[in-house]
Parts: sequence; structure tokens; C-alpha cells
Amino acid sequence: MTDSWVNSAERIGADLHLELSGPGGRRAALTRALREAVRSGRLAPDTRLPPYRSLAADLGVARNTVADAYAELVAEGWLTARQGSGTRVAAGVTPPPGGRRRDAPVPVPEKPASRARGPRHDLRQGTPDVSSFPRAAWLASYRRALQQASNEAFGPGDPAGRIELREALAEYLARARGVRAEPGRIVICSGFAHALRLLLPQVLRGPLAVESYGLGFHRELLAAASVRTVPLPLDEDGAQVCGLGRERAVLLTPAHQFPTGGPLHAERRAAVIDWARARDGVILEDDYDGEFRYDRRPVGALQGLDAERVVHIGSVSKSLSPALRLGWMVLPERYVDAVLDVKGEREAWASALEQLALADFIDSGSYDRHVRRMRQRYRGRRDRLVAALAERAPHVAVTGIAAGLHAVLRLPPGTEGPTVREAARRGVALDGLAGFRHPEAVTSAPDGLVVGYATPAEHAYGAALEALCGALPPG
Amino acid sequence: MTDSWVNSAERIGADLHLELSGPGGRRAALTRALREAVRSGRLAPDTRLPPYRSLAADLGVARNTVADAYAELVAEGWLTARQGSGTRVAAGVTPPPGGRRRDAPVPVPEKPASRARGPRHDLRQGTPDVSSFPRAAWLASYRRALQQASNEAFGPGDPAGRIELREALAEYLARARGVRAEPGRIVICSGFAHALRLLLPQVLRGPLAVESYGLGFHRELLAAASVRTVPLPLDEDGAQVCGLGRERAVLLTPAHQFPTGGPLHAERRAAVIDWARARDGVILEDDYDGEFRYDRRPVGALQGLDAERVVHIGSVSKSLSPALRLGWMVLPERYVDAVLDVKGEREAWASALEQLALADFIDSGSYDRHVRRMRQRYRGRRDRLVAALAERAPHVAVTGIAAGLHAVLRLPPGTEGPTVREAARRGVALDGLAGFRHPEAVTSAPDGLVVGYATPAEHAYGAALEALCGALPPG
Repeated sequence: MTDSWVNSAERIGADLHLELSGPGGRRAALTRALREAVRSGRLAPDTRLPPYRSLAADLGVARNTVADAYAELVAEGWLTARQGSGTRVAAGVTPPPGGRRRDAPVPVPEKPASRARGPRHDLRQGTPDVSSFPRAAWLASYRRALQQASNEAFGPGDPAGRIELREALAEYLARARGVRAEPGRIVICSGFAHALRLLLPQVLRGPLAVESYGLGFHRELLAAASVRTVPLPLDEDGAQVCGLGRERAVLLTPAHQFPTGGPLHAERRAAVIDWARARDGVILEDDYDGEFRYDRRPVGALQGLDAERVVHIGSVSKSLSPALRLGWMVLPERYVDAVLDVKGEREAWASALEQLALADFIDSGSYDRHVRRMRQRYRGRRDRLVAALAERAPHVAVTGIAAGLHAVLRLPPGTEGPTVREAARRGVALDGLAGFRHPEAVTSAPDGLVVGYATPAEHAYGAALEALCGALPPG
Repeated sequence: MTDSWVNSAERIGADLHLELSGPGGRRAALTRALREAVRSGRLAPDTRLPPYRSLAADLGVARNTVADAYAELVAEGWLTARQGSGTRVAAGVTPPPGGRRRDAPVPVPEKPASRARGPRHDLRQGTPDVSSFPRAAWLASYRRALQQASNEAFGPGDPAGRIELREALAEYLARARGVRAEPGRIVICSGFAHALRLLLPQVLRGPLAVESYGLGFHRELLAAASVRTVPLPLDEDGAQVCGLGRERAVLLTPAHQFPTGGPLHAERRAAVIDWARARDGVILEDDYDGEFRYDRRPVGALQGLDAERVVHIGSVSKSLSPALRLGWMVLPERYVDAVLDVKGEREAWASALEQLALADFIDSGSYDRHVRRMRQRYRGRRDRLVAALAERAPHVAVTGIAAGLHAVLRLPPGTEGPTVREAARRGVALDGLAGFRHPEAVTSAPDGLVVGYATPAEHAYGAALEALCGALPPG
């Protein structure tokens, strides 16, 4: 076996490495090397080969040598030559049966994208209406960010994240969410899971109290890091924080309990802050959809009560798109260095260019405009859900509708599983409430559905509602 | 303490949460709430307040109530009102001394960006010339990607990465690096460190053989994950892979040993593949600067010899910019599922939009053009370094110059530390060779400097070379 890649063909638009060795002259060697590159799949169908002149110059052979090699391979059917389109690898070239070399590529079946062939009606929670991404406004911000960036923006970054974004977030979070957010206590991350990972090694030691209902994904992430989670019972006022035991940390969704939907009551908010102060504890505030509140009582961030006891965590995953992988932590001052230690000495995760774009997007008012537009749209969808249920299934109570991108439908005991299956049969994907329940929870376990009303495109929502109502148990 | 955020002021361009409670009428409550929001710093100087009408509508109060509250706060100096610019928070408003509330924000000193005030001459390795980022071409690709993306691109992504990018990389890596890279065995990541993290839990168990010289950052990451690294001696033919013991995995930089600079000899390449086949081992190929080869012997990827024994790892951090946080792994088929398991069920790290932009950047030929342009530029810098040393310090041998973005200067025994310090005194930042040495290495430990010639901007390079030569020990 030889690995002497003897020569390179460089041209504007393409680099090509070829191995010229073996018996015969250079023309034979070049023909053989090209044939092998095509046959093995290393040169994919339709790949454009370099012009004779550049390949000849780079290989140090005569131009005719290259022309002859190309011509021979065209004659053999490996290459095609078309006027104006140069010489290309022929379409449909595949390794001959039985002729595969030991080291030829083994075709690996393509994994389907997880939602590439999704359900007909997707009412799973967790995703905003992706058809509403503000492409033009975002592109305008990205363009301005790229044009105005200093050169150092293209180098290794500050692990805390771009200062431009942290300043924009500080102003925005204070104004819109009541967060006490100086740029120096903000650390940019990829989203909530990344925030957890950054907090785990130094901030979250020992067991973590959580709400009895929450995202299984978060519980699994914590379990994988050997962090025990202790469920707090839930009632209509939110998590029963008076039940906090020896834990030194608690994870809450105070603005909109996930997924059951209520805000944490004012007395509980005060109580959990008191607990944290008395026990030197820390509260993780998962503000996953805080922007989307539909009633006249917007719930400010818990962090506003005590910036030194609460880690406020948010992202653009619900408000803009999960495809951007941009989130933030607003940290108690004493944790900033510990989190940056874990993050590493360079920005290793979030794209600096999209951080700058988001800063511009916020500063220019585009973020507020988009959130407001989506809030109206989601409120409209919620209203349509409520109206459809009132008409088609008045016996099904719907709760958690004052905010967010999902609602909870309460079902008669024992009907949750059959309803989820009946919905699936009708092409509706949604989750039962049971999947969100902590395995050790002692709260009652009502039957219910978690209906994400943001996921379908606008035009598809009516049909999704229709199919959902058809799947509900009779009254 | 109350946390009842009673009302919201929504308008195009701004959300504002205010607390209307306490004694007096609504005008007094609103005035108090706004004053407190400004005084506490929650509303930053120069923040624009909503127009009377929208705030009044949102609060359910008369327009005059808002107008009166604004007027009072303008009179008190908290707000300013200018024709055409609306009502804004006054500049220079700071909490009065002694008047800070218990829960008012504590100013956190801003952390300086790690290289914000860098050295005068930065000759540290690891960073490309950030002043050469192809802003216009990249923006064009980002625009096309955003315009052509289907809606699902803005939703939760495939953890393997966008198929468009994996297809573009498969074609590019096969053509330019000799990698056998079907899209199904490519997993997108944020760079080499992220690749290591994804491989650690399931692929890299037990001790890992490494080269005697390498990045301390990688050793630390492995040590933090309790992976023992065992150094392989280096000689002029690269790592002595015949010394592989009971380890089942080895990390190599076959194209361009980091940082000493030579390629792994052909016999060693064959030998390490044989070892992996015989011992069911795996080779991690860190192809960190494979595109930048200046001689007539480009070194193909080791992975091309056996796609089932080599994990090929690359990124755009050297070829384009580390700010994008985009890299890739080309995996043996049997590891694909394990790595995706670790990565999670959604794309949690790399921006899907910039993945699409990179796919377009590669497919459109912009990547090739940029690499070719930078190769010529870096080759020119290397030549200037070699020429400067030949003239100013002919006794200093320079090695590892056939490729990459850095060179190694060999120094007389005992002079490395003093030279690095003398360089620092002259404003030159660079690293001594010793810092890259594995603590358990048994290879000889020559004195030397690692000179990154890509980092300075083009106009600053001459002065950097001048300062470097001035710091070298006399012959």
C-alpha cells in the first residue's frame, strides 16, 4: 500500500490530489489515478475536473498528457466532456459489482433527519412556528454585523460571549423581563442544556430539587452527570418550595411551569428566595418562553428579586429559532468565573458572527417586533384551540393557556394513553402528560395531553385542530 | 417585597413591564414604578419609552395619566423628552449614593476580552489571519442559504448536522484531502475539542496514545475526562507508532505534526493502520491544517487508507475562522450511532444556518478560492520568515516549514526561556517548544520557538519579524 500523494492540482475553484505511480509512463499513471479516484467514489459524479493547463502545470507534465488522459477516460465512460461545462465525472458511475477494493468506500445508509418525514399534524411542544422565521430582518442584521465587525471578531473569542450581545441582552432582559442583568454577569451559551452542562461541574454539586413535571431530557442529562433530582410537588400555585429539604439548588420554571402552565405564586417566589438566602442555595430559573404572555399579568423574572441567588437562563429557541443555538445565563457574580472556567479559555460553542447578528437584531428593534408579531399569532392559535375545544369537546378542560406555546388538556382518568394512540392514528403527534412526570413524583398523576400549538405552519393549523378534536375521548 | 408585575406596555419596538401598586392613584403608582425602574438601572440610560398612547392602552389608564407621569419624571431629571426622539431615560442617571436598594443591581466589573489588548506583535500559533476573512463571499453564501432554506431548517435539527453540508464536505474532503467521506459517516461539530468530547464517553475508553508534542489544551481536556494519555516518541519520520502498547486508540497529526511540523512517514502510516487492524484499535486523525501545504508533496489524509480504522477530524478554524465554530468528524461506520447518541437527539451546538452557509460556500467554489488565496499568502509569510532568519540569524535553524501556519525555530540549549522573555520584552508574543511537550515524554527536549506566522495582519508582519529577529540569541 502506498500513500504517496505525489502531486496536487490546484486551480481557482478546486484542489485535486492525485497519486502518480506504478508502471508505464506519466500518461498511463495519470489515467490510472484518475480512473481509480472516480471508480472508488473519491471523485463524486458531476465533479468538475481542473482545466488541462492548470492540472498539467501543477503536475509538471505536458498539457497533452492531461488531455490524453481525460480523453481516454471520456471514451471509457468515467468522465464526460461538454462544451462550456468542462470535463466532469460522469453521472451514474458506481463501483462495478465485485470490483470493490478492500479500501473502497462502504456506502453508509443515510440517516433520515429526525423530523424530515414528520407526522401530518405536529402538535408536539417545544418548537416555534419555523415558517415564521424573519428571514429578511435576520439577514439584514447579519449583514450589518458582518460589515461592522472588527477583525478580532473573526479570531478566537471571549468565552463569556461577544460583549455587543451581552450589552444588548442586558438592556433587553432588564426592560422586558425585569432581569438585573449587567453584561459582566451574562455568559452566552447554546441553550438550556448547555447552560446545565456549564453549571454542573462547579455550581451544581449534590442533589437538585426539580418540579414534579418537567422535560425528561433535562432529567436524563442530569442523571448522566450523576446529579440526583428530587421532585417537588406541584399545585395550582406552582412548585411547593416549602418542601425543599437538604438540597442546595432548585430548578424552576417560575414564569410558566413546564408543562402544566401556571406561574409560581408571589408568596412562593418570595419563599424560595428566602430559602436560598438562608441556606446559601441557588435557584436555576428556566425562562424558556417568558416573552409569550397573553394576559394582563406578565410575570417578571424571579431573578429580579435577587440577582445573587438566581441563575436566569434563556434562549432564542422559542422566540426566534432553535436552529441558531444561542442562549444566555445571567449569573450571580460569584459563579461567573467558575462557569467561564468550565467553558474554556476561548469561545468554543456559539458562532461569534451570529452573536453579533443577534445583538444587532435586538438593538435595532427587530427582536421586539418579531416577538410581538409571534405573540399575536400564538395568542390567536391559543384562542382557536380554546374555541375548538369549547365547541367540539366541552368536557375537556384546557389549562396553562395564559402564556407560552402549549396548553394542557385534562382528560378523564385512564384515557391519556388511548387518546395519544388515537391521535397518532389520525396523524396527530403530541405528548401525554405522563411522559413529563418525574419518576419519583408523589403529586397526583392526572391524565392529560400537552398540545404545542406553535409547531404547525399557519395554514396547517386548522386541520391539526380538527384532527385533534376528533381524537379526544367522548364526553 | 412584591413581585406582582401587574401590567405590560407593548408597542412596536419595545416591551416594558411595570409594577402599578402602592398608595395614591394610578398616576402616582405609574410615576413611582417608572422612577424606580430608572433609578435601579432596570431601564438603562437612553432607553426609549413607549408613546403615551400605547402605554396607556396597555395599562388600561388614560393617556393623560401617562403624559403626566412622563412630565413629572422629565421635571425630576429621570427622563428626557426631545422633539422627534420621544421620551427617553436620561443619560448619566445613576443610583444616588447611599440610596441603593437591597435588591438593586450590583455593578459587576466587565471582564476584558482575552485578547482585547493583545501584544504588539502576536506570533502565537493557532489563529489564521483574521483580517483576511472573506466577508463579502461569506455573506453572499449566508444570504443564498437563508433564501433557499426550507422552513424545517429553522426547527430542531438533525444531530448529525445539515445534510447539505455533509454532502458538500463529502465531495470536498474526497477531492482535496483524499478522505473517504460519505455523508452518512460525517457528523458536524464545533471543532476538535467538541469532537473529542463526543468521542469520549463511548469510543475513547481507556488510555489514549498521543504524540510527545501536542496541544496542552487537548491533554487537559482528556485528563479532565479521566483519560490517561501515553506519549509516543517523535523522530524525523513522525510518531514512533511501533511503540504503541496496550492502548486501543491513538491521536495523531499525520499531515503536519503539531507543532514540530513533519508529516508521518509512509511506512509509519501503513504501520499504524496495520496496528489498528490487528488490535481493533482506532486512530484519531487531527487534520488541523491539511489544506495548507506548500511543497510538491501534499500529504493525503490517513483516513483514506482505512475509513473503518480512522476518525478524521477537521474544521474551518484555520482555513476560514475559529469564530464560526464549525468542524466535522468522518467516522468509521460502527461509531456513527454512538457519537450521535452522545450528541443528543437534536442539533444542540452548531448553527444550522451557518452550516447551510458553509455548504454553499464550499459548493460555490468560494472555499477553494479562499484556501488558495490564503495558501499563497501564508507561503509568502513563511518565505519572508525564512529569508529574515537567513539574513539576521543564520545560526537559527527553522523546521516544519513545508506546511501549515507556523514554523519551529531551533535554539541553542538553555536559551528557550530567556528568548521567550526577551521577545515579550520587545512586544512579541510567542510560545516556547517546552509548553507543548507531554509531561511524561521521553523524547529529547530541544530548545525552540513555535512561531505562528498567520496571526498578524498583513501590514504588521514585517515589524513582527523584525522584532522577533531582534530577540533571538546571538550566533
